[in-house]
Amino acid sequence: MLVESRNVVLLVGGVGGAKLAAGLARVVPPEHLTIIVNTGDDFWHYGLRICPDLDTITYTLGGLVDRVNGWGIAGDTTATLDALGRLGEKPWFRLGDQDIATHLLRTSRLQAGESLTQVMAAITAALGVRCRVLPMADEPVATRVDTVEHGELDFQDYFVRHRWQPTVRALRLAGIEHATISAAVRHAVENADLIVIGPSNPWLSIQPILSVPGLRQLIAAQPVPRVAVTPIIGGQAVKGPTVKIMRELGYTVSLETVTGFYKGTINGFIVDAQDQGADFDDLQFSFFDTLMNSDEKRIALAEHLLSWTSDWIS
Amino acid sequence: MLVESRNVVLLVGGVGGAKLAAGLARVVPPEHLTIIVNTGDDFWHYGLRICPDLDTITYTLGGLVDRVNGWGIAGDTTATLDALGRLGEKPWFRLGDQDIATHLLRTSRLQAGESLTQVMAAITAALGVRCRVLPMADEPVATRVDTVEHGELDFQDYFVRHRWQPTVRALRLAGIEHATISAAVRHAVENADLIVIGPSNPWLSIQPILSVPGLRQLIAAQPVPRVAVTPIIGGQAVKGPTVKIMRELGYTVSLETVTGFYKGTINGFIVDAQDQGADFDDLQFSFFDTLMNSDEKRIALAEHLLSWTSDWIS
Repeated sequence: MLVESRNVVLLVGGVGGAKLAAGLARVVPPEHLTIIVNTGDDFWHYGLRICPDLDTITYTLGGLVDRVNGWGIAGDTTATLDALGRLGEKPWFRLGDQDIATHLLRTSRLQAGESLTQVMAAITAALGVRCRVLPMADEPVATRVDTVEHGELDFQDYFVRHRWQPTVRALRLAGIEHATISAAVRHAVENADLIVIGPSNPWLSIQPILSVPGLRQLIAAQPVPRVAVTPIIGGQAVKGPTVKIMRELGYTVSLETVTGFYKGTINGFIVDAQDQGADFDDLQFSFFDTLMNSDEKRIALAEHLLSWTSDWIS
Repeated sequence: MLVESRNVVLLVGGVGGAKLAAGLARVVPPEHLTIIVNTGDDFWHYGLRICPDLDTITYTLGGLVDRVNGWGIAGDTTATLDALGRLGEKPWFRLGDQDIATHLLRTSRLQAGESLTQVMAAITAALGVRCRVLPMADEPVATRVDTVEHGELDFQDYFVRHRWQPTVRALRLAGIEHATISAAVRHAVENADLIVIGPSNPWLSIQPILSVPGLRQLIAAQPVPRVAVTPIIGGQAVKGPTVKIMRELGYTVSLETVTGFYKGTINGFIVDAQDQGADFDDLQFSFFDTLMNSDEKRIALAEHLLSWTSDWIS
């Protein structure tokens, strides 16, 4: 295998994106890999600053992740959560004891004035993650979900407490107008040789990243392959509410809806092999098995991304 | 046994005071018992608001305390602490997983605008503690320890990290000028029929309480028995640095130093039976076995406090 010398930037949310991140981390040297992560899911809970997507990526790359759930730390216990129950609380967000350590360290460092980028650099370094795991922005942004049944909900309230069952009417990114492209994100994008949008939920996970003022434009301006990996296989989401939300927001459930959503941002698209026959104007596209249900398939998809895009320019 | 109908107020710090609190809680109906607790030891650690003395009292009265240490929750685990170690931290303050639940609940409620008095009322109620456990004040006060070896230290830095080994030159109560007598503390003191100062460290644990502006005067003005239980037995502290600090601050190690320190505040003193023969001007005093190394002896001391003081007035 040739050692990859291109700089690769991956945009992701949580569980699905983490699998592709893990694949890329196996085939791209860490100094050439940067993961830019959605922070719209971040929230405060019992005084802790919790960043679910950043932690899922970090635990996955650090080899700590609970592989059954795809998030959290393998073998984590819930003594604190159980004690909160004894104190009369009804915690609805699973806080593992080991996971709480991450939240405590992050919260205290943020309160001491460090940026989220700095904090995540320290946490990833401590866990042996050598590529860069960057928050999309250091300023807090909160995805709010306007639902038919309950009105506007905080993201985790919608996603975890209500198990994404309410009907989505609209999405809003509170605070996005104050978000800025960090120096680390700008450096990564401007020096990227390949930009990949992971198979994460376009509306819930990728939209917040692309909505950081100026970031979509900065990405679109890079004269390099900018490839999205399909979040839909055979008309279904692998996991989570991608298709449900697409429908509720009034879109047709189709690959064209996805490419339309990314129009102008991407110039390439990886379609699942199950969807053989699909065709896309103005995009390079490639069919591949995108269901990353093993380490081998994560690596295979990552290698395909590298080899396919090395061919097609310039 | 007669049901005690007097209102009893106990002033305490942590471990030693908790034993007397537990004894009193067995012989005084909860509606007649109020514990006023030192908060000068409170501190922030990894973004958590930690109140060691309030928690020691609460866990003891709730039957959760680790009886070997005298603090913390029996059987508590340290998964979070261990995970902080994996993140490169070297935590020096023992944070049990169940204990962290208390800190999380307190921190988040304080940040939501509740007073410490309100928060502790909720926590004690949830744990089945029916008497009142009141912080000496709702405003933050921090005991600072000026040491020969390291200069001024935060209290827990002195007490836990340095295991109270540095030589104390002076004590300072940062923020005490902003502390106020809460409505709950005022109500308890003004309605007290018996005020007890526990066998806690006079300088580290009781001094902060008595330094809340106006509180020493309010206590001294109550025409009721105001009794201190000796913190020294046979010239030794039962546990902790009482004698060491007394010496370092330039006092003679004696019971008279203790009564002198409380002069004007107390009108009675319980001396340990080992110190039979001691004599005190202007104070009622009584000899009793004050070493509370069993439940029976905690209860016996509490009963003695009640029966002895019921005789001597008025």
